[in-house]
Amino acid sequence: MQAVLDYLTKNKARFVSELCDYVRFPSVSAQPQHKNDLLNCAQWVVDHCEGIGLTASLHKTEGHPIVLARTPRPKGKQAKRPSFLVYGHYDVQPPEPFELWKSPPFEPKIVGRSLFGRGSSDNKGQNLAHLKAVEAYLKTSTPLPCDLTFVIEGEEEVGSKSLADFLKREQKQLACDAVVISDTGMPTPKHPALTYGLRGIVAFEVTLHGPARDLHSGIFGGTVDNPAMALCQMMAGLRDKNGRVTVPGFYDRVLPLSAYERKQAARLPFNANEYKKFLGVPQLFGEKGYTPLEQRSCRPTLEINGLTSGYQGHGSKTIVPAWARVKITTRLVPDQRPQEIMKLVIAHLKKICPPTVRIEVEGGHGAEPYVVSPESPRAQAALRALKTAFGCEPVLLREGGSIPIVNDFKKILGAESLLLGLALPDDNAHSPNEKFDLECFTKGQRMAACLWQELAGS
Amino acid sequence: MQAVLDYLTKNKARFVSELCDYVRFPSVSAQPQHKNDLLNCAQWVVDHCEGIGLTASLHKTEGHPIVLARTPRPKGKQAKRPSFLVYGHYDVQPPEPFELWKSPPFEPKIVGRSLFGRGSSDNKGQNLAHLKAVEAYLKTSTPLPCDLTFVIEGEEEVGSKSLADFLKREQKQLACDAVVISDTGMPTPKHPALTYGLRGIVAFEVTLHGPARDLHSGIFGGTVDNPAMALCQMMAGLRDKNGRVTVPGFYDRVLPLSAYERKQAARLPFNANEYKKFLGVPQLFGEKGYTPLEQRSCRPTLEINGLTSGYQGHGSKTIVPAWARVKITTRLVPDQRPQEIMKLVIAHLKKICPPTVRIEVEGGHGAEPYVVSPESPRAQAALRALKTAFGCEPVLLREGGSIPIVNDFKKILGAESLLLGLALPDDNAHSPNEKFDLECFTKGQRMAACLWQELAGS
Repeated sequence: MQAVLDYLTKNKARFVSELCDYVRFPSVSAQPQHKNDLLNCAQWVVDHCEGIGLTASLHKTEGHPIVLARTPRPKGKQAKRPSFLVYGHYDVQPPEPFELWKSPPFEPKIVGRSLFGRGSSDNKGQNLAHLKAVEAYLKTSTPLPCDLTFVIEGEEEVGSKSLADFLKREQKQLACDAVVISDTGMPTPKHPALTYGLRGIVAFEVTLHGPARDLHSGIFGGTVDNPAMALCQMMAGLRDKNGRVTVPGFYDRVLPLSAYERKQAARLPFNANEYKKFLGVPQLFGEKGYTPLEQRSCRPTLEINGLTSGYQGHGSKTIVPAWARVKITTRLVPDQRPQEIMKLVIAHLKKICPPTVRIEVEGGHGAEPYVVSPESPRAQAALRALKTAFGCEPVLLREGGSIPIVNDFKKILGAESLLLGLALPDDNAHSPNEKFDLECFTKGQRMAACLWQELAGS
Repeated sequence: MQAVLDYLTKNKARFVSELCDYVRFPSVSAQPQHKNDLLNCAQWVVDHCEGIGLTASLHKTEGHPIVLARTPRPKGKQAKRPSFLVYGHYDVQPPEPFELWKSPPFEPKIVGRSLFGRGSSDNKGQNLAHLKAVEAYLKTSTPLPCDLTFVIEGEEEVGSKSLADFLKREQKQLACDAVVISDTGMPTPKHPALTYGLRGIVAFEVTLHGPARDLHSGIFGGTVDNPAMALCQMMAGLRDKNGRVTVPGFYDRVLPLSAYERKQAARLPFNANEYKKFLGVPQLFGEKGYTPLEQRSCRPTLEINGLTSGYQGHGSKTIVPAWARVKITTRLVPDQRPQEIMKLVIAHLKKICPPTVRIEVEGGHGAEPYVVSPESPRAQAALRALKTAFGCEPVLLREGGSIPIVNDFKKILGAESLLLGLALPDDNAHSPNEKFDLECFTKGQRMAACLWQELAGS
């Protein structure tokens, strides 16, 4: 194992230079004019994998190709050994607006310990770190304690449309004990993190229909309900003054936070005043009894995303609007089920709708919440790898957003995901001047190298 | 007087033909390309007035000209006699959409007892009826018991922008005991009507500001208030389940309806089921303790005219919106005061606004409510004239909308208005296929003829 770590140290400079080559591809999956750049980038990944000793192949999809790469499997009949899948993506967000970049987005530039360039942090630097760790094993002939399969796709930034089909098609050769993904974040370089939970989501659109057309508020106002007012009254009742959602049954399946989880959450660096200032709100507000960090990651919410009714232009228009519409999303936490929450919310809305308007509710997309036990042997193994590589006590995170591919891995491959993100909050992912911290790159390689020892033994 | 009525009968056909000439002018005040058509129409009115024996003049304004016409004043020093101002407008609404008209809007067409054409009812037919009544007096040398001044403007459909200035400039020669306006409606040809009250109005725009920018509802949702939800909660509390506005002091100055008024209102033809069907609502809703007719004309309201927040496009966008906005109008009744109501509403909104968002309230335009006592001598005189001309017991109406010029007449000339509308509910004012009932035209002329006798003696 020391040989592996020495190899990583010795080749540090070359790895940075290779990351620069990787970042130079303008592999913007959302923009059709970059179709060939994605293909070229995918081919570069295939060639790179083969160069370090993996068996790699490029798989066409209806969108951009997926790269599949495997460590050499031991010859002969051996006792079955652990197998892991490493996921990453080579596509990047659009770089616009160009004028806000201090250096061109696809001309990587090193300033201090940061490498600037679109995709440097999200996700090229992170998936290359995993490849470099494997290279170190293979080039030093250090036996890997497990089989590894890399899946590096080109459509993550546009919804991973082809990934589920690919997982289904290649289900057999992708079978694994767990998935490892470095595509999330850590709070600071001194707080390496395991993200062990994600929120789910359900979206709704509710329309209240009142009069058949907008009515003159002078001539008719006072004799009919106002759909916008009716909508406000319905929405108002959905959240109480303690910030709790009032839909009956909404919290029934919510798992309470364990003492271990709350203790871990309390270790995270957080300054409420700075946070308030960063968001620009006059005052924070959330569910009583929980810290802001818990509120935004471990507790479900119901948010209005949009309101539309009547006249929206300049000045006033004296009408009773014909209809009013609201877009709602609820963020879900384990073990809430999107379909069940959808039913509960729709039934409740229909129940509280007054007879003076007609309600139309449409349930939209949903995603399951996700959690792996932070006390499970694999999670503990990951934490040990983080600690060894970074030299600090790692933190446990739950994130408030959803990562739909995690549910695909669970549903199609039956595998849990370990989220070991290497991005820092100021990496400007999806923004101008994206950068990757080169120390996170180096330590990420070491973490990946240690991880296989820890996981195989766990 | 019999000579006047006989003259009206004898010249019926010619009057209809003259109305057709009047309607042929496409005097669309909102459309710049019709500027000359308005000028030509105004000149036609001047010429017409002079032809029937009035002294008429055309007054330029910053917009379209105003026609002023006066009956010949008696010679020599006489005891001061009553003087009335008759208001009308020669401009019309835009005719679009053309494709919905059964005959071209500016080619008048008679079908049965209706004359179809833009402006036939609103307001050319109605002001011509008054001119024809005066013509009958002058051409039969029947002495008028009062002095009359006609003001026929060309900007009513675009807000009467020049009228107030004109009234101020010509205040001396426009001095009068009362104003007579035929620009409202009657429920059916068997229900000639005196409109004795109008609602006032105040407009507001309220914006709640939350985070400095739209926030990712996954990453941040749960830790900040949602401005759209806060807005719904504030709005929800403004109207209780009995349909009453909850702003403290809102009803303090509302005059209760007299037994006489409620009795008169109960005489009006009204079918709740047909009304509900006409509006297309599942169920009527209004302030408890009042009939729909009272609710829409004699009671104040608070209506949401528009809602805007966050994402309004197709599908969903998972954000906590940065701000939410509502447009509100309150309809006012005597003796509510727009400025006072504005202050009450704004103070209340600021009071109920939670500390988690920042409120911005803008008070918009206002108009005073209007009422003349239906038991006053002049109102009773008008009712007698209606009864004589139509041969049916007239009804007393209060209308829910506002007619700002009525307040101008009161403020600038110190004169009350008698609203004696000749339009039927199915006249399609402001809509395609506008028409005027020729029996309303004929009976309107007789009403106008009788009115001066009744008013001068009242």
